[in-house]
Amino acid sequence: MVIDVGGTRFGGGHFQIIAGPCSIESKEQIIGIAHSVKASGASLLRGGAFKPRTSPYDFQGLRAEGIELLLEAKAITGMPIVTEILSASHLHLFEDVDVIQVGARNMQNYALLTELGRTRKPILLKRGMANTLEELLSSAEYILAGGNGNVILCERGIRTFETRTRNTLDLSAVPALKEMSGFPVIVDPSHALGVARYVGPMAMASAAAGADGIMVEVHNEPENALCDGAQSLTLEEFREVAVKVRRIRGAM
Amino acid sequence: MVIDVGGTRFGGGHFQIIAGPCSIESKEQIIGIAHSVKASGASLLRGGAFKPRTSPYDFQGLRAEGIELLLEAKAITGMPIVTEILSASHLHLFEDVDVIQVGARNMQNYALLTELGRTRKPILLKRGMANTLEELLSSAEYILAGGNGNVILCERGIRTFETRTRNTLDLSAVPALKEMSGFPVIVDPSHALGVARYVGPMAMASAAAGADGIMVEVHNEPENALCDGAQSLTLEEFREVAVKVRRIRGAM
Amino acid sequence: MVIDVGGTRFGGGHFQIIAGPCSIESKEQIIGIAHSVKASGASLLRGGAFKPRTSPYDFQGLRAEGIELLLEAKAITGMPIVTEILSASHLHLFEDVDVIQVGARNMQNYALLTELGRTRKPILLKRGMANTLEELLSSAEYILAGGNGNVILCERGIRTFETRTRNTLDLSAVPALKEMSGFPVIVDPSHALGVARYVGPMAMASAAAGADGIMVEVHNEPENALCDGAQSLTLEEFREVAVKVRRIRGAM
Amino acid sequence: MVIDVGGTRFGGGHFQIIAGPCSIESKEQIIGIAHSVKASGASLLRGGAFKPRTSPYDFQGLRAEGIELLLEAKAITGMPIVTEILSASHLHLFEDVDVIQVGARNMQNYALLTELGRTRKPILLKRGMANTLEELLSSAEYILAGGNGNVILCERGIRTFETRTRNTLDLSAVPALKEMSGFPVIVDPSHALGVARYVGPMAMASAAAGADGIMVEVHNEPENALCDGAQSLTLEEFREVAVKVRRIRGAM
Repeated sequence: MVIDVGGTRFGGGHFQIIAGPCSIESKEQIIGIAHSVKASGASLLRGGAFKPRTSPYDFQGLRAEGIELLLEAKAITGMPIVTEILSASHLHLFEDVDVIQVGARNMQNYALLTELGRTRKPILLKRGMANTLEELLSSAEYILAGGNGNVILCERGIRTFETRTRNTLDLSAVPALKEMSGFPVIVDPSHALGVARYVGPMAMASAAAGADGIMVEVHNEPENALCDGAQSLTLEEFREVAVKVRRIRGAM
Repeated sequence: MVIDVGGTRFGGGHFQIIAGPCSIESKEQIIGIAHSVKASGASLLRGGAFKPRTSPYDFQGLRAEGIELLLEAKAITGMPIVTEILSASHLHLFEDVDVIQVGARNMQNYALLTELGRTRKPILLKRGMANTLEELLSSAEYILAGGNGNVILCERGIRTFETRTRNTLDLSAVPALKEMSGFPVIVDPSHALGVARYVGPMAMASAAAGADGIMVEVHNEPENALCDGAQSLTLEEFREVAVKVRRIRGAM
Repeated sequence: MVIDVGGTRFGGGHFQIIAGPCSIESKEQIIGIAHSVKASGASLLRGGAFKPRTSPYDFQGLRAEGIELLLEAKAITGMPIVTEILSASHLHLFEDVDVIQVGARNMQNYALLTELGRTRKPILLKRGMANTLEELLSSAEYILAGGNGNVILCERGIRTFETRTRNTLDLSAVPALKEMSGFPVIVDPSHALGVARYVGPMAMASAAAGADGIMVEVHNEPENALCDGAQSLTLEEFREVAVKVRRIRGAM
Repeated sequence: MVIDVGGTRFGGGHFQIIAGPCSIESKEQIIGIAHSVKASGASLLRGGAFKPRTSPYDFQGLRAEGIELLLEAKAITGMPIVTEILSASHLHLFEDVDVIQVGARNMQNYALLTELGRTRKPILLKRGMANTLEELLSSAEYILAGGNGNVILCERGIRTFETRTRNTLDLSAVPALKEMSGFPVIVDPSHALGVARYVGPMAMASAAAGADGIMVEVHNEPENALCDGAQSLTLEEFREVAVKVRRIRGAM
């Protein structure tokens, strides 16, 4: 199955790199990052506007304003954009968003999945932290059941006892999901690991495992990021990772 | 903290037994079960109207009609009722529901928690399958942040490698949550175990661990239940379990 | 199945409390603790002589000397003793030990289990941190296969993502193991939790779940213990826990 | 750190492929496989003589005879050999074995590790199914403490809730262990996955993640293997995997 996102294709042998900050923080930030990651080879821009934070007292994202800034970055750079939705009641804000992300915490929010099934938008569906691959496909089925077959699956780490990394990246999900379904499968090493210096090796491993793309957090100043700085690559680090990943892809 | 549900109190040394079927299936079914579990000592009636099913092709509950049937059972028996909500857009249907349940899959559905924080309803917040106790309390904080302090926490098993039981009941959550917060803490052994014949021993263990109550699935004909029959007690089994649990409580 | 340990019986409706320090540290320590826990109701004395420590640079136990001190405590108090073996090559030191413990780390050390199957000693076999109940029974089978049917199973917590407790006590192992086999089943809440103040509630819950006994770490000065002080009860705390556990047992 | 195994080096940028059957079954089998995997690019031959089987009634390996057959294969092909030890009492049989493997079940068998620390043999130390990376390094420390610094670490999957694969391969262990220590790190995708058709993609991913080698199960007739046939590659499949892995290595 090939999913077309404004000319950028997922599946069918294509490999896409989605990059951008955890949170959209300002116009300068998102546009600056967008230009840089595009030059380094990213084909889609990600950025969080509605942020699902564990604590209600943490920064919750710029919300509607964040989406507007992301749309500006899209207009300027021409990159398709990916951003997360937390509630079907916000759907009207996502009209010009190219790919709507459902985060790990909402993988079994069936009310939301059902509503997304009524749209025809590409949906990036992340695996829940404690969900099996079968359950991920059952959740995709909620979107399909509404008539929307544009689903991209995303492995982003599962919860285990290991504490060195934030979650445990289950890369065998890539060949397994490809065997179990026809959906494109991408990998988000940033959230899986929570440690920027492990993101490069795992991005390369994702490509070697046969993923159809990766999604990587990149920030102009990770140490000052409003969210998840510890796992964000700098602009320079991302450029190097993109080069290495392409080299792996070339060898396959 | 003591939470008053129409005169039935959670916390402060009280012990409540919530019982009822996984799904409301018909008027006769819910009213029959309600009469029986009340006679056996249950103080609240549970019943699923909106069912979060892994597959979109499984029975999704009677939805609005299910809530009406539950309200009839409440009117007839006088028992306060507990039922699960899947989306804030259904809130108008829950006006006469006494306790609104947030299920494990929605423990980090912050959009839903935020809306529930705006009500003054008692909320039964279940621990997610892969969530730590700290995260459960952070989710409770979303409800509190809106001004609604009526939160009852519920341990219902976490995901582990063990396959003999559906999940692993983490009973140490009871003393731990009581140390970490002031909320009442109840236990749902039915969903944790997925095996009816282990529910009794774990209900007794829950009482001995200091829980403020238990929530147990009971069905008039478990072998014909539309959902989760394998973990449902029969009416007779429930009566025996209730007797044993009261005996444990008496000894404490 | 009833297993007789010098007149003290496991299984068949009996309930035994095993208590003592993580490590045997000195003659005064082990004899003092033995007298105290006996007076509080413990029927067996535990104490570690060979300690399986994660780091080779941590205190490894008094080894042969520790067993001699434990035997002195047995001679003085008349209590049967339980202590852990790490290698079949130490078996000659265990001749007068009443119950030989196989720790969680060695649950699948088949060379050791095979040798213990050739003895006729009661073996206390602890569940490994990542082992299913079926695997625990398969390990017991290694002892049985040699002709030694004196196996007591022990649930002591499994590894999960939760960090509030050292491991997650899987109390449903009690009814499950009793259904799957005829061996007595005891619970070690101390190692499962790693937190002394949760040991009492979980000891009571273990009794309510139908366990045939509990094993609890008790130390005269937990804050100065050479090993696992954080999970050890004081002598006074143990006395109170023993009273409460007996009360639960009485109610059953 | 570079570890020299009869001229074959682990670490320092070298990449080694260890291949062979789960169990040594006969002279023809092991020699036939050895010739084939050598021709395909394997630099070491693996084969199980002492097999740690969950059930005592399963095939336990050819034991001493198996080691003799493995030594014959070594003599004929010139390949260094790797095989697992279950008890220090068998050490005399391992004199001509090039690399002694400690399996996942014995990662915390400290009596065994201590004895291996007294040898100067290269030790292949596998991560336990429920062990953290820190614990793996602490176990390596038991070998080091005896004066034997020849330790090769092996990631082989951890236990999680996912059932599609036998274990969950934690590939981030590769960059993490390399950051935490100087030991060479290899990956065993066969035991991690338990599914032959996922072994190829994960072998490639292991190389891309920066591993110093892989260990792969290969059998002439997987469908008739006495042990672990479902995860064994055929001779032809192995040849193809070896080609692809080399291609990935070439790109790095």
